[in-house]
Amino acid sequence: MTGRFDTISFISDHGRSDESVGLVHSVVRHLAPGVAVIDVTHEVPQHDVRSGGLTLARAAQYLCSGVVLVAVDVSSQPTRSSVAVQVGNGASILVGPDNGVLAPAVAMVGGADRAVRLENPEYHLATVAARSESRDVLAPVAAHLCNGVPLEEFGPEVDPAGLLPSTFPLTRTEDGQMFGEVLWVDHFGNVQLNLDPDEINEFGDRFELLVGTEGRRAGTVGRVNRATDVGTGAIGMMLDLYGMLSLVANRFPASEQLGVAAGDAISLVPLLEGDAQVATAVSLGRKPEANG
Amino acid sequence: MTGRFDTISFISDHGRSDESVGLVHSVVRHLAPGVAVIDVTHEVPQHDVRSGGLTLARAAQYLCSGVVLVAVDVSSQPTRSSVAVQVGNGASILVGPDNGVLAPAVAMVGGADRAVRLENPEYHLATVAARSESRDVLAPVAAHLCNGVPLEEFGPEVDPAGLLPSTFPLTRTEDGQMFGEVLWVDHFGNVQLNLDPDEINEFGDRFELLVGTEGRRAGTVGRVNRATDVGTGAIGMMLDLYGMLSLVANRFPASEQLGVAAGDAISLVPLLEGDAQVATAVSLGRKPEANG
Amino acid sequence: MTGRFDTISFISDHGRSDESVGLVHSVVRHLAPGVAVIDVTHEVPQHDVRSGGLTLARAAQYLCSGVVLVAVDVSSQPTRSSVAVQVGNGASILVGPDNGVLAPAVAMVGGADRAVRLENPEYHLATVAARSESRDVLAPVAAHLCNGVPLEEFGPEVDPAGLLPSTFPLTRTEDGQMFGEVLWVDHFGNVQLNLDPDEINEFGDRFELLVGTEGRRAGTVGRVNRATDVGTGAIGMMLDLYGMLSLVANRFPASEQLGVAAGDAISLVPLLEGDAQVATAVSLGRKPEANG
Repeated sequence: MTGRFDTISFISDHGRSDESVGLVHSVVRHLAPGVAVIDVTHEVPQHDVRSGGLTLARAAQYLCSGVVLVAVDVSSQPTRSSVAVQVGNGASILVGPDNGVLAPAVAMVGGADRAVRLENPEYHLATVAARSESRDVLAPVAAHLCNGVPLEEFGPEVDPAGLLPSTFPLTRTEDGQMFGEVLWVDHFGNVQLNLDPDEINEFGDRFELLVGTEGRRAGTVGRVNRATDVGTGAIGMMLDLYGMLSLVANRFPASEQLGVAAGDAISLVPLLEGDAQVATAVSLGRKPEANG
Repeated sequence: MTGRFDTISFISDHGRSDESVGLVHSVVRHLAPGVAVIDVTHEVPQHDVRSGGLTLARAAQYLCSGVVLVAVDVSSQPTRSSVAVQVGNGASILVGPDNGVLAPAVAMVGGADRAVRLENPEYHLATVAARSESRDVLAPVAAHLCNGVPLEEFGPEVDPAGLLPSTFPLTRTEDGQMFGEVLWVDHFGNVQLNLDPDEINEFGDRFELLVGTEGRRAGTVGRVNRATDVGTGAIGMMLDLYGMLSLVANRFPASEQLGVAAGDAISLVPLLEGDAQVATAVSLGRKPEANG
Repeated sequence: MTGRFDTISFISDHGRSDESVGLVHSVVRHLAPGVAVIDVTHEVPQHDVRSGGLTLARAAQYLCSGVVLVAVDVSSQPTRSSVAVQVGNGASILVGPDNGVLAPAVAMVGGADRAVRLENPEYHLATVAARSESRDVLAPVAAHLCNGVPLEEFGPEVDPAGLLPSTFPLTRTEDGQMFGEVLWVDHFGNVQLNLDPDEINEFGDRFELLVGTEGRRAGTVGRVNRATDVGTGAIGMMLDLYGMLSLVANRFPASEQLGVAAGDAISLVPLLEGDAQVATAVSLGRKPEANG
């Protein structure tokens, strides 16, 4: 049988410390031997649907056409079956739990064409023990989808609008101050904000950064084109690899310097012309000496 | 040459922090280009033959037919050559050190058909430096096995009964108390015990859990069908993904809550009917506040 | 089009905690579907060009012919474009930043045939956001090289002699004492030195080890053939998997016992015959009890 897809992109919160990711690869290799499984990442924090959804949304535009297997917090909704969601007029099918983790990516690519609940046991792995959603449901369904089994075979069709949505944190402006939050801290400690560049067009090139709900002053931040343009001990803001704004330091984790993590609140205050001249250094958070 | 096998499943204690796992992939790619190498896991704790053997045994039934390359504590038995063990009437061949790490899986799949010691240097990588058992012996042998080189070519045949066995920890009952131990803690902190569900059939649905050799009281545990049925701050016991009994918490690592790790002793005491009514909460071990 | 190469060996400092490595795989899969990407390691410490260069040099002789994609500290030289360096009369092409990370491996395999700067945007991924050197330049160039696009297509040819060199730490002898440094600590805590076995031929089988710039005495070290020959609590020196000398302990990380890390200074003092008889135990650094 000529397969419909030849690539499965795989994102999970399973880590690599045990065999669970490896068994998904094994199951796919058994059922659909010619299919490549690309490990996007398996280090989504355990049970962290928000982080998984953002990871998937960032990655989405770069993934190959095919099946995207998303196994994050898979046991969170024992009463809601996992789903397969077709997007892009059939270009790709996302397979995962109905807990909102697929929603940001589906929205980004223009919404769902169709969706089914994975309730047909014929395409699951039989198990005498407790069911592993990844190993026993998502992996075999992904493999069979690659093999060309039509979507409707896997279970009852559902209205995509009825799937659990996700909430993307919105920014708000109050008295000229922009309130946002940290979306993601990458491997190098760059701090992605939920800020589109357009949102702070009128803020100019320098502003005051406040972090946390208490609004701790973290110093003056200037716009830069690349992290290597940031002065020692300072924090810059730049357009990042995904088109969002990120706080960065020069060969040092900005997250550590600012003491922030994903989900933390931040806010920005525009500087008056006079202010901008005064503030050239940045007051540091944690570990100022390490970057000195 | 048409290959005999097209998949190598690879388990090790090598981690991914350096290039040793990557070089095994490279050697296989060089010698048997069409073969897929599936990384089951490389995070078996260093030198931990018991943990590696249990990982392999859990994974075994899900692995593809082919070669299984097990590189755990490979330098532990410098006087005993590594072995290749054929199982399942030739369905698969396990390749690894003769230190007991293969034994639990071999037993699980019905014992060995044949075994040879990997002593024919013709199938090893020549090296002027110290020999890496993984890179220079196990990887090329696995590749050549896939290519169809017959088992007997790799070295002298040995009686599988003479290979180093492993010891699986047995449970015992004393005065109605069941003594067992922690086999494994998974990525989510679920605590697998060496307990078959049948062994505690007469224990009913609730029992007292004691942990450690000193028998520290860890509270009352009830049977559940899934982790999401466990109350906040409580510990449940369920049939796990592999058909064993595991201690679980609700979206929190039970291992942390109980303060246990692989190899730790546990015991269970059945509760009388009256007792069961009284004990509804669980006294917590470490970090009770984090799950509160 | 018949491809020129079918394997990309991939080394980076990107970790696997986010999707950046996965996206390189995705981009290659999209542009050159039949090519295998082998993850050598992605745990080179962030921005650590020296460590990345040494990792690549150790791995080089075992990598398959083809493209070697090296993404370490990729944003370090914003003013110098990344390069593709052909070696071995076209057997392989190394692709990476011009920051010295390729230099040790290129030297090891006999120098560069040719090199070009990756300045032709036709072979880069278009991006409206900030450019990711790995995802948008190195990955597509590696894929196109596999597909057979000639080297000169990717940008202007440069004299390989003009690429940023690396510095390999040299040993020196002073008053019969050999001064060197720690090149690498592997996953098992073995401590590779920048010492060729020939350099200490006249040192005999036992010597005094001093660590750190202050020359802290770490005890007597004897030559061994394998780590399992080292006595409990002792440190041995052996020819390692790569033909260099390494300090090792018996199933315990020598790095922990000695309290050393990559880049640390060490020195060796030959023992007189009489001394050698006296010193049979080793004074330990950190955690002596753990190995006792």
